[in-house]
Amino acid sequence: MEFTKMHGAGNDYIYFNCLENMIEDPESLSIRLSDRHFSIGGDGIVLICPSESADVRMRMFNADGSEGKMCGNAIRCVAKYIYDRGIARKDDINVETLSGIKKIHVFAENGKVTSATVNMGKAAGLTSDEITIEEGKGKFLIGYPMEAAGKSWNVTTVSMGNPHIVTFVPEVKDLDLMKIGPHFENSPLFPERINTEFVRVIDRTTLEMRVWERGSGETLACGTGACATVTAAVLNGHCDKDTDVTVRLIGGDLVIRYTDDAVFMTGNAVEAFNGNVEI
Amino acid sequence: MEFTKMHGAGNDYIYFNCLENMIEDPESLSIRLSDRHFSIGGDGIVLICPSESADVRMRMFNADGSEGKMCGNAIRCVAKYIYDRGIARKDDINVETLSGIKKIHVFAENGKVTSATVNMGKAAGLTSDEITIEEGKGKFLIGYPMEAAGKSWNVTTVSMGNPHIVTFVPEVKDLDLMKIGPHFENSPLFPERINTEFVRVIDRTTLEMRVWERGSGETLACGTGACATVTAAVLNGHCDKDTDVTVRLIGGDLVIRYTDDAVFMTGNAVEAFNGNVEI
Repeated sequence: MEFTKMHGAGNDYIYFNCLENMIEDPESLSIRLSDRHFSIGGDGIVLICPSESADVRMRMFNADGSEGKMCGNAIRCVAKYIYDRGIARKDDINVETLSGIKKIHVFAENGKVTSATVNMGKAAGLTSDEITIEEGKGKFLIGYPMEAAGKSWNVTTVSMGNPHIVTFVPEVKDLDLMKIGPHFENSPLFPERINTEFVRVIDRTTLEMRVWERGSGETLACGTGACATVTAAVLNGHCDKDTDVTVRLIGGDLVIRYTDDAVFMTGNAVEAFNGNVEI
Repeated sequence: MEFTKMHGAGNDYIYFNCLENMIEDPESLSIRLSDRHFSIGGDGIVLICPSESADVRMRMFNADGSEGKMCGNAIRCVAKYIYDRGIARKDDINVETLSGIKKIHVFAENGKVTSATVNMGKAAGLTSDEITIEEGKGKFLIGYPMEAAGKSWNVTTVSMGNPHIVTFVPEVKDLDLMKIGPHFENSPLFPERINTEFVRVIDRTTLEMRVWERGSGETLACGTGACATVTAAVLNGHCDKDTDVTVRLIGGDLVIRYTDDAVFMTGNAVEAFNGNVEI
């Protein structure tokens, strides 16, 4: 079956056009195809399916076979896929996901999408299931002094659908995330585990970030993490709302705009290659 | 340009048919395409080129852009590539490499190669450039007590074109290679650095092996390492010469036969997928 390998900020998936062809047992297929040595390799697979309420429906499966709700880096690639191929050739594309219908605005050059902006929804505090600190239930906790890996860190909590803590540090390059990341992820303060962003403020419109994702460890990019980072930066007075802020990640740059109603993420969408695999 | 992704025992390369089309600047292409997140991903690229003295000539480039001499896992895939596509449809195939012409015997099912045996040349001792121990220059050093990572290890030296030391241990699964590997690689005993195999003897025809490759760290499989391992096992009386010995690696099994004239390696050759990439 034909596939397309694409990435957004280095977050790479294997995309299948399922508008006419169905894929059976995508869970086990994702495990098999995501292997970076024995098969195609990627962070998972994405199926582009028909939708009754949007232009297309996106189903995504992680490398461990579990189904994901939404991924801000993958959904830009879905928009590029259907725009470039003429499936939905318009500037504003709607994609149905397990987190609802998402709106994507695409930017094209010579008929091909190069980047896109996604409405990532409204930032919020963590739920009472996600945090044990009473004053942090249901609202932002700003600059809370948390003990982890033998020292104290000021963390700010943000939910972008999934839970994050953001901590501002003088330098991110030298951090030994392999060592300190698990201490944050498994802190008793966050019973459902937590994604942690380590952020250096470069100036009011530029941040540098590394991320430790629960269940995955350090990754090249995390879209919701970049949104949580700029939200926390606004809450802590490092950045301004209604203003584009560039977040530099290992996998590339994402541009985030925090507003009171929603967080908007802009980033690239790149087609690496096309292929054919027996499934 | 069209490519084929193949692997032998998990050692995966991107193969290009260069019998008619040339590839310019394969060094930088290999760096770009080997990236496992932003491009195709692999241990490097292999160009299948015309030869005046063999069926084809193989050129291989590592993920860092350097040109490799020979790879026993890649050459089986070259044989499969040209057999399956009818470029050289015969059981014994000759491939020209920077280490000379190698003979490969292929095993096919339904017209497709599934595995192949490669004559890997004669095992020897290390050269005087590769080892500082006087009694190990030019001949095998068997069970030499080497100090590394705070303890003593009995090592046996073997050159398969590249230098190896092999050490037999009661258990390989629990070894912390990330920590101890560099102590072997950078030992002053081996001025050109060394590849190290950690081997558990299961029975006289089965060994389990993990490898720390100089410059690469732990890898899924190392063909010359498996050959060195069986050579050392014969020298230490664990296995017999002229007998097939199965070496279990993380990436799969290799079957090695040590003889006084040459070491023979048999392993799988798998086509993962075909693709098309802009180069």
